Amino acid sequence: MALPEAERIGGLPSERARVVRLRQGHVSEGPDVLAAEEPLEIRLNGEQVAVTMRTPGHDSELAVGFLFGEAILRPEDIANVAECRSDEGDGGVADVGLRPGAEPAAGWQRNFYATSSCGICGKASIEAVRQAAEPVADGPVVTSETILGLPDALREAQRVFERTGGLHAAGLFDPDGRLVTLREDVGRHNAVDKVVGRAALDGRLPLGGHVLLVSGRASFEIMQKALMAQVPFVAAVSAPSSLAVRLARESNMTLVGFLRAGGFNVYAGRERVAGI
Amino acid sequence: MALPEAERIGGLPSERARVVRLRQGHVSEGPDVLAAEEPLEIRLNGEQVAVTMRTPGHDSELAVGFLFGEAILRPEDIANVAECRSDEGDGGVADVGLRPGAEPAAGWQRNFYATSSCGICGKASIEAVRQAAEPVADGPVVTSETILGLPDALREAQRVFERTGGLHAAGLFDPDGRLVTLREDVGRHNAVDKVVGRAALDGRLPLGGHVLLVSGRASFEIMQKALMAQVPFVAAVSAPSSLAVRLARESNMTLVGFLRAGGFNVYAGRERVAGI
Repeated sequence: MALPEAERIGGLPSERARVVRLRQGHVSEGPDVLAAEEPLEIRLNGEQVAVTMRTPGHDSELAVGFLFGEAILRPEDIANVAECRSDEGDGGVADVGLRPGAEPAAGWQRNFYATSSCGICGKASIEAVRQAAEPVADGPVVTSETILGLPDALREAQRVFERTGGLHAAGLFDPDGRLVTLREDVGRHNAVDKVVGRAALDGRLPLGGHVLLVSGRASFEIMQKALMAQVPFVAAVSAPSSLAVRLARESNMTLVGFLRAGGFNVYAGRERVAGI
Repeated sequence: MALPEAERIGGLPSERARVVRLRQGHVSEGPDVLAAEEPLEIRLNGEQVAVTMRTPGHDSELAVGFLFGEAILRPEDIANVAECRSDEGDGGVADVGLRPGAEPAAGWQRNFYATSSCGICGKASIEAVRQAAEPVADGPVVTSETILGLPDALREAQRVFERTGGLHAAGLFDPDGRLVTLREDVGRHNAVDKVVGRAALDGRLPLGGHVLLVSGRASFEIMQKALMAQVPFVAAVSAPSSLAVRLARESNMTLVGFLRAGGFNVYAGRERVAGI
């Protein structure tokens, strides 16, 4: 019952597969659309840094956003990004080349290979996952009407999501709720990397004055990626984690959660929400 | 606006925090419950293997399940697991000790540190993330009534989920729908690692004849963890990815998705679903 090659649509963010459906006791069979997931090997100057499972597309943005978020490169040092994909949908490579003379951040292997040797239990662990970043600057102030309108704006822009129900989305907005960048992925963190990577490639970092909306939960990882890009305002459709709230509060960020029709919760930085 | 220490509940899977709520134009303020997220450093014989963001609790299971799923250890080689946690909620360590004479799987660093050098683009990437595992054995056959009842059984057992809305769950069931193990985490893959780790520590691997239910989507990673444990039947409340379906079909596994009231989709291994 191997997936026929003819069913696969290489290079698109979705694939078709035959599926058996049971609904209210009735069985049917037919094609279904799946969110595509494939490995991407991220390289820096030809050296492998990480392999991530991602939805194909915008691979250069993903590689750049990931390496920036891990504090491994500075956007101004990027010379080029080479993409390479297997025709068989088995994966791909995105290799970020730095300009002559530029070096990766000293000690970047620390992020992945570090051996903890601290005396206080666990203390090294949080430091191993946490990147040094300045707190974000004050502002902008966003109205609750604008905030409440973000999920609809995101969904309207998400055509693939409507088809598969299997993709996370990240949307970057201006303070008036206008969509700047939308990216989708099976991994929520990848969608954020793509948004930040796009900004890095366009020379638009840091992203002060912007709002980032994510379609699912707000984890520590999401908040840290936003902080690295200096996005001051993060909204999530679902729940935030404890560490997401903590990082937001320590970094002067606004964190809104459970953003749904008619309401939301503010977990940090309420001064950026007008009138509450 | 740092999170007061008094608000934090160390060692529990949830924490309390003050939150500002907007509902239908009305603003209120009060305590909220957050799913706890903290880093865990996973060690093998004292050496750091990985740092994962997880919900505290069942750390030994998580470490064992993770190392087993990455094909780094064999359950029979485990001598002990030492846990250590920071009082400040900053993280923890779980160190799996192997019995004298036992060695980690040869070349385990490959999983994390490998440099790809293949000629065919991308081909190495999928091999870098894919563990060698035999296809699962045939059986069991499960009725659609049993399958339809799994989400309710999982939710009933998920008291924390009801409180925070922020935790993923993984439930291991027998073919009659009886819950064997339930684990929760901010990370869906961690919840699966905890379930498999529990089985490993109890000497119950492989898990042929069982059904694994995950509360969210079914990704490649989830399917691979199930395959390593030889779980033949995976059901997900939400959508599967393309690579999850492909791995299931290539490994003789059953994959059910969009498992909700009144229906589900079968993406692979329909012979294990009675009557369809």
